[in-house]
Amino acid sequence: MTLEHTEEGRSARKRRMIMEAATTLFLRNGYQGTSMDEIATLAAASKQTLYKHFADKEALFSAIVLGVAGTVESFLERIATTLAEPKHLYADLQDIARHYIKTVMQPQVLQMRRLLIGESARFPELTREYYEKAPERVLAALAPELKDLDKRGLLKVDDPVLAAKHFAFLILGTPLDKAMFYGDEIGYSEEELMRLADEGVKAFLRAYRADPS
Amino acid sequence: MTLEHTEEGRSARKRRMIMEAATTLFLRNGYQGTSMDEIATLAAASKQTLYKHFADKEALFSAIVLGVAGTVESFLERIATTLAEPKHLYADLQDIARHYIKTVMQPQVLQMRRLLIGESARFPELTREYYEKAPERVLAALAPELKDLDKRGLLKVDDPVLAAKHFAFLILGTPLDKAMFYGDEIGYSEEELMRLADEGVKAFLRAYRADPS
Repeated sequence: MTLEHTEEGRSARKRRMIMEAATTLFLRNGYQGTSMDEIATLAAASKQTLYKHFADKEALFSAIVLGVAGTVESFLERIATTLAEPKHLYADLQDIARHYIKTVMQPQVLQMRRLLIGESARFPELTREYYEKAPERVLAALAPELKDLDKRGLLKVDDPVLAAKHFAFLILGTPLDKAMFYGDEIGYSEEELMRLADEGVKAFLRAYRADPS
Repeated sequence: MTLEHTEEGRSARKRRMIMEAATTLFLRNGYQGTSMDEIATLAAASKQTLYKHFADKEALFSAIVLGVAGTVESFLERIATTLAEPKHLYADLQDIARHYIKTVMQPQVLQMRRLLIGESARFPELTREYYEKAPERVLAALAPELKDLDKRGLLKVDDPVLAAKHFAFLILGTPLDKAMFYGDEIGYSEEELMRLADEGVKAFLRAYRADPS
């Protein structure tokens, strides 16, 4: 008997269906434009079931926002794994940069950012928590890795936190800012994004590579 | 007799008061949360006068958004003037970087960006027009100046458009992205912003300065 067929499995599956339905509606119609009734209908759940899982619309929204923030985990692991034993500095940073831009430029991540920015006056704490748990956490993970590359004599990094910010925005700056205004039809091809990642790494290495000694 | 006392002067002054009142309300309560009645009351204007100047709420919002985009003009002039006769490359770019960060990090500009990003699904064309007339226009103005610095042998710039983006986001990247999520209590001091501008210019010059030949 698999988990799906137990009471616990059914409950977890229902919860996931509710969150998927709510994500779709929040990202399409905004927070105010979405009702618990609509969420229940799209999730094929009774109102009773819906409220058993989430006390109110705000609790459901919060769970979704923090769930999207959590998708950063696999990228953080990649940073740590790739830079634990750097083999070829450009190729290693390029790998990280390409995954960085792919992670952030996913339509669902962009939509969530737009929604949160627009709702930041209504949910100041949740919005900050998202920023701390997603964008800022990546910067915080990059900084000690760059410092380590300095210790290995590969980079010259006096201020690792600042260098992490420079790395991030040399890669993400333009496509991310533009995507905030342009919605999902921003029209960057995968090829263009990879080029922006590669050129960002090249500029970063020109600015931060250690002098050969 | 000054313009203020003519019929035309009174009408222009009234229009300005309406726009100021509407800006205050839109930025505080959002587009949906603001009514033409409230705007008329705050501007001390009759509804008749209000509608004489602006056909509807959307026309008024559009005028305000494009007005904020227009504040980029004086910064564009500064770029052109400063780099027409570059004297000291670091000091000249530092001057531009410091004004850039000051211009973009003004509370009203940040609030307008947040509002537009949140409303981008409702006003896709207006939001794109803002992006083209403000952020993208600065990038478009920077690119030929950087190319010119390449011709003078001061920078090595193969792709001026890309170099302009790198310049912009080395300086603005972190404070701007964070400000989108943190609202107006982001708490960067003037001193911190100036340091971010200076360090951005230094990293840019390490990445793009021409080799001495």
